[in-house]
Amino acid sequence: MLYFQSDYLEGCDPAILKALNETNLDSTPGYGEDKWCDLARARIREAVDMKEADVHLLVGGTQTNSTVIRAILRNYEGVITADTGHICGHEGGAIEATGHKVLTLPNTDGKITAKQIEDYWNAWYQDESRTHLVKPGMVYISYPTEYGTLYRKAELEVIYAVCRRLHLPLFIDGARLGYGLAAKSCDLTLRDLARLCDVFYIGGTKVGALFGEAVVVPDPTLMPHFFTTMKQSGAVLAKGRMLGIQFATLFEDDRYVKIARHAIAMAEKLTEAFRRKGYRFFLETETNQIFIVMKNEDVERLTPDVTFTHWGPLNEKETIVRFVTSWATQEANVEKVISLL
Amino acid sequence: MLYFQSDYLEGCDPAILKALNETNLDSTPGYGEDKWCDLARARIREAVDMKEADVHLLVGGTQTNSTVIRAILRNYEGVITADTGHICGHEGGAIEATGHKVLTLPNTDGKITAKQIEDYWNAWYQDESRTHLVKPGMVYISYPTEYGTLYRKAELEVIYAVCRRLHLPLFIDGARLGYGLAAKSCDLTLRDLARLCDVFYIGGTKVGALFGEAVVVPDPTLMPHFFTTMKQSGAVLAKGRMLGIQFATLFEDDRYVKIARHAIAMAEKLTEAFRRKGYRFFLETETNQIFIVMKNEDVERLTPDVTFTHWGPLNEKETIVRFVTSWATQEANVEKVISLL
Amino acid sequence: MLYFQSDYLEGCDPAILKALNETNLDSTPGYGEDKWCDLARARIREAVDMKEADVHLLVGGTQTNSTVIRAILRNYEGVITADTGHICGHEGGAIEATGHKVLTLPNTDGKITAKQIEDYWNAWYQDESRTHLVKPGMVYISYPTEYGTLYRKAELEVIYAVCRRLHLPLFIDGARLGYGLAAKSCDLTLRDLARLCDVFYIGGTKVGALFGEAVVVPDPTLMPHFFTTMKQSGAVLAKGRMLGIQFATLFEDDRYVKIARHAIAMAEKLTEAFRRKGYRFFLETETNQIFIVMKNEDVERLTPDVTFTHWGPLNEKETIVRFVTSWATQEANVEKVISLL
Amino acid sequence: MLYFQSDYLEGCDPAILKALNETNLDSTPGYGEDKWCDLARARIREAVDMKEADVHLLVGGTQTNSTVIRAILRNYEGVITADTGHICGHEGGAIEATGHKVLTLPNTDGKITAKQIEDYWNAWYQDESRTHLVKPGMVYISYPTEYGTLYRKAELEVIYAVCRRLHLPLFIDGARLGYGLAAKSCDLTLRDLARLCDVFYIGGTKVGALFGEAVVVPDPTLMPHFFTTMKQSGAVLAKGRMLGIQFATLFEDDRYVKIARHAIAMAEKLTEAFRRKGYRFFLETETNQIFIVMKNEDVERLTPDVTFTHWGPLNEKETIVRFVTSWATQEANVEKVISLL
Repeated sequence: MLYFQSDYLEGCDPAILKALNETNLDSTPGYGEDKWCDLARARIREAVDMKEADVHLLVGGTQTNSTVIRAILRNYEGVITADTGHICGHEGGAIEATGHKVLTLPNTDGKITAKQIEDYWNAWYQDESRTHLVKPGMVYISYPTEYGTLYRKAELEVIYAVCRRLHLPLFIDGARLGYGLAAKSCDLTLRDLARLCDVFYIGGTKVGALFGEAVVVPDPTLMPHFFTTMKQSGAVLAKGRMLGIQFATLFEDDRYVKIARHAIAMAEKLTEAFRRKGYRFFLETETNQIFIVMKNEDVERLTPDVTFTHWGPLNEKETIVRFVTSWATQEANVEKVISLL
Repeated sequence: MLYFQSDYLEGCDPAILKALNETNLDSTPGYGEDKWCDLARARIREAVDMKEADVHLLVGGTQTNSTVIRAILRNYEGVITADTGHICGHEGGAIEATGHKVLTLPNTDGKITAKQIEDYWNAWYQDESRTHLVKPGMVYISYPTEYGTLYRKAELEVIYAVCRRLHLPLFIDGARLGYGLAAKSCDLTLRDLARLCDVFYIGGTKVGALFGEAVVVPDPTLMPHFFTTMKQSGAVLAKGRMLGIQFATLFEDDRYVKIARHAIAMAEKLTEAFRRKGYRFFLETETNQIFIVMKNEDVERLTPDVTFTHWGPLNEKETIVRFVTSWATQEANVEKVISLL
Repeated sequence: MLYFQSDYLEGCDPAILKALNETNLDSTPGYGEDKWCDLARARIREAVDMKEADVHLLVGGTQTNSTVIRAILRNYEGVITADTGHICGHEGGAIEATGHKVLTLPNTDGKITAKQIEDYWNAWYQDESRTHLVKPGMVYISYPTEYGTLYRKAELEVIYAVCRRLHLPLFIDGARLGYGLAAKSCDLTLRDLARLCDVFYIGGTKVGALFGEAVVVPDPTLMPHFFTTMKQSGAVLAKGRMLGIQFATLFEDDRYVKIARHAIAMAEKLTEAFRRKGYRFFLETETNQIFIVMKNEDVERLTPDVTFTHWGPLNEKETIVRFVTSWATQEANVEKVISLL
Repeated sequence: MLYFQSDYLEGCDPAILKALNETNLDSTPGYGEDKWCDLARARIREAVDMKEADVHLLVGGTQTNSTVIRAILRNYEGVITADTGHICGHEGGAIEATGHKVLTLPNTDGKITAKQIEDYWNAWYQDESRTHLVKPGMVYISYPTEYGTLYRKAELEVIYAVCRRLHLPLFIDGARLGYGLAAKSCDLTLRDLARLCDVFYIGGTKVGALFGEAVVVPDPTLMPHFFTTMKQSGAVLAKGRMLGIQFATLFEDDRYVKIARHAIAMAEKLTEAFRRKGYRFFLETETNQIFIVMKNEDVERLTPDVTFTHWGPLNEKETIVRFVTSWATQEANVEKVISLL
C-alpha cells in the first residue's frame, strides 16, 4: 500500500530518533525544566531572532489551538477565523468547550483578508445591539492554510496592521509551518512571520517530530501564567524533555525547513504528473497538499493501492481528493503512484 | 547528581525504544486506528480478561483525569475524592475548568473509606436544601495513592459496593498502577482491580513509557462518544501509534509489572537503609515512594548530591521529604545515596 | 413618542398587577415552593393536558435557552438551529459559554425543515471523521420564529418525527408563544404543541408578564435534577412566587391567549395600513411582528415620532424595519402611526 | 403560621409597589436603557458619592456572584472565600460551572482575616510547584456574613490593604447589606464600604425589593464589557425598568437603610426574649439573623406554629436553629413567637 492521505503517517526524522536513543536513560527534571527544553527554546528564539520571546512546548495541534485561544480571550470574546479553519470543524468543538464562540468568515482558497476582518469588526462595532453580541477578540489564521495555500507577505502585513489597529491579537496556526516556509511561492522567512503576528506555533507533529508544537510568543505579556493554563488544559508533558529533544534537533542546522523541502519536492513531482496526465486541480498547489478533482471510477481504481483523502464529492461523477506528501515520503512511492495514474 | 525526586526522570524501557526504532518509518493511519494500537488494546483486554472492555490511549495524567471526569459527570454533579487526590491541587484547577466541583473528604494516609463516601452521600441526600447543592456524581481514588499507599482488596470491595448502591461510578487513577501491583503488600491482581471499579487507567508515563495512560472501561456505555470528548479535550495524538507501540510493548510478557518490581526492590533497599540509620518515616512505605521526616540540616547536607521532593515542613526543625524510585533507578545510585545518609 | 420597537416596553397585564398588590405582604416559602407556584404549575399542566409534566419557572429568555440546552446536551454535543435562531447571535455567546457549539442551518423566513435536520444528521453520520466532529445532540426552533412566522402543524409533525427517529430532543423557544397561538394562521393548540416536542417554554416576558418563562417538560426524565442546573445557572428566583403569581394569573380563564389576540388585532390593523399605503413587506406577517421595506427618507421622517427596529439595510436606498405590537399596544397609538405613514 | 425562616418571604416595600402601579403602562426601552434605571444608577452613585462608578442591576444573588466572579477572574485563577461563603455550597456549583476553583479559608463566625488571605497567597507564591496550582485571583467576602456578623471598619481596611498589595480584587457580597448598615454595631457607612473594595453589591431581594441586586464598580475598568458578560450569563432583564424602579425607590430618601432598621429592631426584640428565656446563642447576633442552640424537644414543640431554619444538629439533644427578621416582619408576630418560647 502507498500512503498519501496525510503527513502524520510515519514516526520521526532519524536525527530525532538518534537523540532519543542517546539520551534515553539520562535523568532530568520534568515539566519542561530540563536542559533539552532550554536548548530547544534557545534555538527557536535564535531562529526567530527574538531574545525575549516565550517558547512553550505542547503536544498536539487541537490542544495548542484551544489552549492558546482560551488564554487570550476574555469570557465575552470570540475568535475570528476562516470557515475552513481547523478550529471550525474537526476539533470536536474544542474552542466552544472552553466557552468561546468561533466567528467564521467565508474563505477564498482557505484564506481570509484584512478587509473581511475589518468589515466584521465594523459590523459588530456599529451594531446598536453590539453589547448583546460576542465581541471579536482575536484572529486565527493558518500558515499554510487547511487548503495548503499561503498568505503572501504583503497580505499578512495588512492583516496584522488591521489586527493591531483593532486590538485583535493575531494567532497563526503553523501545524504545517515547515511546508509553508519550504514552498517555492513562500515570500517570507520565519523571522518575518514572527514579526507579523502576536503568537504562532511551529508544528512538529506533521514536520518530522513524533509529536509536538512549539508556541512562540514575541511579547510574553500576551498570555500571563500560560504554564498554568497549559497544566489546566492537560497540555503539559511530565517528561517534557521529549519535546525539548525533538525541537532542539529540528532547529539544529535548519533541519526543520530542510526536511520540509523534501516534501515540497515530492509534491511538485506528483503535481507535475497529475497535470501531465490531464487531471484537474481543485485549487492551485503551493505546499505539500494536492487537491485533485478525480472521476469516481479513478477513485475506485486507485483505492486498493493508494491511500488518499476523500475531501468530498464535487458532483455525481467526480470527487475532490487530497494527496499529501511529507518529510518521510519516499520518492520510489511517488513514482509508483504516478505509474498508477 | 543522584535523582530521586520522582519517577518521570528518564526516558523509556529499552524494549519500547527498540520498538520505536524498528517501526519508525512504517506508514500507518493516525488517531489510534493503526495496528499497534489494536495490538495494545487487545493485550490490555487480555490482561484484564475483559473482551468487551473499551481501551483508550491518552497522553498524560492530568489530561486523563479531567477528560474521564467530564465524560462521566452531568453538569450538576461533582466528584468525590480524598483531599490529597491529585485532582485537588496540582492540576491547576483542571476539573473545575470543565465546570465541576471537586468534593473533598479528609484522607487517612492518602485513602478514603466506603463509610466516608456513604456519609457524604447521605448528608447530601438528607439535606433539605440538597437541590441547591452539587450532587455527588462519581468517586475518584488513586491506586497507589498520592502517598504511595494501597487500598486492600477488601477495602476496595466495600467501596465499590457502596458506589454501585449509590449509582456513583468509581474511577481509579492508576498513574503509578504498576508500582501498586508490584508491591509486596498488594493483595489484588490487575483483573481484580478491573472488576472493582467502573473505569481506571494504567499509567505509562511513570512506569516505563515516554508518556501515555491507558484508560480501561469495562462497560463502554459508561462514556459514549468518548473519542469525541478526547478530541475536544486535546487528548488525541495524531501519531497515535506512539501510544500503541508503548502499551503493546509494556503488555508483552507481563513487562509492565516486571519492570515495576525493580522499583519496589530499590525502594525496599532504600527504606531498609533509612530505617537502619534511624530515620523516622512520615508514613509506612508500600510502593515506590518513601516519605521521611528529615532534620533540616540533613536536608541541606544532602541537597548538593541528591534530588528529592520537599513535601513540606513538619515543624521548625524537620521537613517531610519524599524519595521516589522507578523502573529506571540504578542500584549503584541507591547505594551512593545510602552511603550519604 | 409612539413605541413600536418591541413587545417588552410596558409592565404587565392589570390582572397580574392586581394579584401582586393583593398578595404583597403574604408570607410564603421561597424558591418556587409556594402555593402560587403550585397553582401556576397546575394550571399550565391542565392547559397542556399533561398531568405528569414538569413545569419550571425561570426569569428570562436567554437564561432559559442556555439553561435548558446545557441540561440536555452532553459535552460532545451541539444544538441544531436556524441561523436566525435567537441563540445564534443576540445572546452574547451564552450557549458557547456553557461549552456547546451552535450548529446552524440556513433559514427560510426564520424556519428550518425536517429534511434539513435529517440531511445535517446524515452528513455527520456518514462523515468518516465524524468522531472528530461535534455530534448533533438536539434541535432548537422558535414558535413563532424570530421573523414572526409560524410552523404549520404538519411541518412540526414531520420535524418531530425526524427528531424522535434520530434521538434528537426537540426544544421549542416560545418567548412569543402567545402571539403564535393567537395568530389567525395558527393551526395548532397549546396541547398540540406540547405533544410535538420534548421541551418548550411559554414566554411571559413578552406576553403580559413583568418577566418569566415557563418551561414545560412532558417527560421529566429528559432533564433530571433540573432545579440544580437552574440554581447553578443563576436562574432561580428567591421570591419564586413572583413567577407563580404571574403564570397563575396568565393561565386563569385562558388570559394568556386572550391578551395576545389584542396584539394580533393591532398588528393586522397596522399591516393593512402599510399595505394600503403601498409599502412592501420584507416577509409575510403572521403574528405581532411586521417587517417592512422602507425608504431611508421615510425612516428618517418617522423617527422623531415613532420608535421601531432598524433590522438592517436592504440596499442603499431602503432599510428593513420592524414594527411590533403587544398585549399593551393602544389602538389610538396605532391610528396615530397610520396617520404618519 | 409565623414565618421566620428567612428574609425573602414577602413581596416588596409598599413604596415600590406604588411605583410599579403608577408606571405599569408607561412605555420605555428595554435592557436597562430606560429613565428609571438611569435614576436608580444616579441615586446609587450619589449614595456612594462616586460619580464615575458603574452600577449594574442584576436579578438575583447567585447570578450576581457567578457573573461578577467570572468577569474578574482569568481562566487560571480562583476566588478566595470563607468556607461558609455563599459561593461554597448552596449555589449548586455555580462558580465551578464557570470554570473556576473556589479556594476556601476556615471562617471565624463567618469571617476571614487579612492575615489568612496573605498567608494563603504566600503559601501559593512560595510553593515551588505554584505554576501547577490555581492562582488566587480575587477575594470574596460577605457583609453581613452568612452568620449575620459584620467586619469592623478596621478589619476591612486591613483586608483591602492586603488585597491591593497582592493585586487581588476584593468583592463584597451585600445580599443583606441593608441589615449590615442598619445594625447598631456597624461602624462604617455605605460610602466607606464603597471605598474599601473593588466591587460590591447592594442586595434588594432580601431588603425590600421583589428581586434585584445592584452591583457597584468604583473603577469600571475592572470589568470591561460587563453588560455582555451579564447577557451571556442570562442576567439581563428585558424589562430592565423593573430593577430601575425598585432601586430608584429604595434609594429615595434613604429608604433602603430605613426599612432595614425595622428588621434590626425586630431582631433585637426577639434576641432579648431568647436571652431572657435562657436560650443559648450559637454566636453573637449583630444583624437580622439569630442563631440559637435549641433543645430538640423545643424545636418539635415550635414547629407547628413557627417556621425557622434548621441549621444543623449541634449534638444528639440540641439543634442550631436560625430565626430571621426582615423589613416586613410584623411586631405582633414577633410577640406571638416570644409568647411561644
